[in-house]
Amino acid sequence: MAVYTEIGEDELEAFVAGYDLGKVLSFKGIAEGVENSNYLLVTDSGPFILTLYEKRVEESDLPFFLGLMNHLSARGERCPTAVADRDGRLHSRLADRPAAIITFLQGVWIRRPRRQHCTAVGAALARLHLAAADFEVRRRNALALDGWARLVAATADHADDVRVGLAEDIADEMEHLRARWPSGLPQGVIHADLFPDNVFFLGEELSGLIDFYFACNDMFAYDLAICLNAWCFEADRSFNVTKGKALLDGYAAVRPLGQEEIEALPLLARGAAFRFLLTRLNDWLSVPEGALVVPKDPMEFHARLRFHRDAESAAAYGFSL
Amino acid sequence: MAVYTEIGEDELEAFVAGYDLGKVLSFKGIAEGVENSNYLLVTDSGPFILTLYEKRVEESDLPFFLGLMNHLSARGERCPTAVADRDGRLHSRLADRPAAIITFLQGVWIRRPRRQHCTAVGAALARLHLAAADFEVRRRNALALDGWARLVAATADHADDVRVGLAEDIADEMEHLRARWPSGLPQGVIHADLFPDNVFFLGEELSGLIDFYFACNDMFAYDLAICLNAWCFEADRSFNVTKGKALLDGYAAVRPLGQEEIEALPLLARGAAFRFLLTRLNDWLSVPEGALVVPKDPMEFHARLRFHRDAESAAAYGFSL
Repeated sequence: MAVYTEIGEDELEAFVAGYDLGKVLSFKGIAEGVENSNYLLVTDSGPFILTLYEKRVEESDLPFFLGLMNHLSARGERCPTAVADRDGRLHSRLADRPAAIITFLQGVWIRRPRRQHCTAVGAALARLHLAAADFEVRRRNALALDGWARLVAATADHADDVRVGLAEDIADEMEHLRARWPSGLPQGVIHADLFPDNVFFLGEELSGLIDFYFACNDMFAYDLAICLNAWCFEADRSFNVTKGKALLDGYAAVRPLGQEEIEALPLLARGAAFRFLLTRLNDWLSVPEGALVVPKDPMEFHARLRFHRDAESAAAYGFSL
Repeated sequence: MAVYTEIGEDELEAFVAGYDLGKVLSFKGIAEGVENSNYLLVTDSGPFILTLYEKRVEESDLPFFLGLMNHLSARGERCPTAVADRDGRLHSRLADRPAAIITFLQGVWIRRPRRQHCTAVGAALARLHLAAADFEVRRRNALALDGWARLVAATADHADDVRVGLAEDIADEMEHLRARWPSGLPQGVIHADLFPDNVFFLGEELSGLIDFYFACNDMFAYDLAICLNAWCFEADRSFNVTKGKALLDGYAAVRPLGQEEIEALPLLARGAAFRFLLTRLNDWLSVPEGALVVPKDPMEFHARLRFHRDAESAAAYGFSL
């Protein structure tokens, strides 16, 4: 949760005047999104989300992120879209930062997901993978092997402040994953951060996906492995195999998994847990002063990582061959 | 800014079903209000603010706060109103806290107030004082002399951590104010916290007042003195006499000030600065762990206090006799 930047009413009005949205009727910071500052913006045309991109998002990546949302929406997938300004631009600048106006997506994120939510998320993820097939902009995954190695180095000196032995465990895991990480699996655009707070429901119906700011080109099955980590563990850190099966079945009903993808699933899930362990650990060790952020506990993902190390096949996740 | 409490979708839906507002379409924490947790709630009936009252607000005060808003609105003053549930109640409970659904007031608060905003605020404050004359619920000011004395005691041991000598300065000020604080001035319902973030504008037009959770019965001129502190100092801590005159003229055009009120203004302004110095200092010294709060600098109000000590009459604030 973060609202970092205070915006003056004059510069806000000048910014909104660049769009065909009428006058500003309301403007409130909202407590969502860790990477960016998000505001509810109500104009004569209705409610919108105004996003200021803080330092973690590269301005040069915005054509990928915003273009992807508009591409998916044009293909019938439910997600917010970036509103074009009077010059046709999807983003410009406000308060000295890149900024965009995004449509307001109805729905509520599910604090306590149940089996049927996991089925719906699996299906939505597969539809996203298929719908983005003809999206032509490319973005490499900054949080793949090389990015992990940088985070391993950045956190090495202080990881043991969180738990004694953690730095060595992380170094060993990095070596293990680097030696075995697959390369030939089907690839395309992945969401790469499809946690419950990025999936909205209206009643039991999935109403759309949000927050495409980690999206990139990488292995489809890795995206699914991220969702196994994000949706199928309980608060006590145990894996719920019923939810795992629901997620995998929901996905495979839309985009069947190949044999190699199925076999790689435990390793991919291990890599996914490692990725979130590293970023959370890095956040934990470097909370910016004055940030309205409570960092998330990195050790949640250490527990997940240990589960995946013991998984011998996709059957551990409920996958029925 | 604060969102303290996570609300599950099931309990939210059950709560909203107690109102005649249709189904939940969206629910987002908003980064406004220091005392309470506030959420944007969109239902089939439109946008609302859902407020959870955290520990600083007494449940027994809610009939005063919420009743006052509805009273003022019925008198034609622009402010949010509390929505009655199917049983006619203005508040009930959610997530183990008192909770209310409040109408959504359009407008944007002014980060950099100019003269004309001060005129409008003065007039709105006077209208509030008059419109609440026949509001029958009473609430004593918990942050008057006795409340200040409690905060003086609570902060005494650590005030010098903020600035050496501050504890003694505060003790002296408490004695000064207790010996001279007026008692016979015209009284009624006051807002008691009418800072810029509690006043909304649409363009140049004041669209309404919000956040009545410090409202109470006290001297009208004290409320005006709070506004002098809240609206008429610049970022460099200097007093802007043009804004002071605008505020006072705006007020007096609606409710003329009596001679005793005018004469008391420097002392009342001094008390108002002291009240915010004390509460900010107390917050500064006791930020709750995990709170999404950046405490405001208490010394801003120490600078104001020093200005008021030097003010010899209401003329120092731009009041023309």
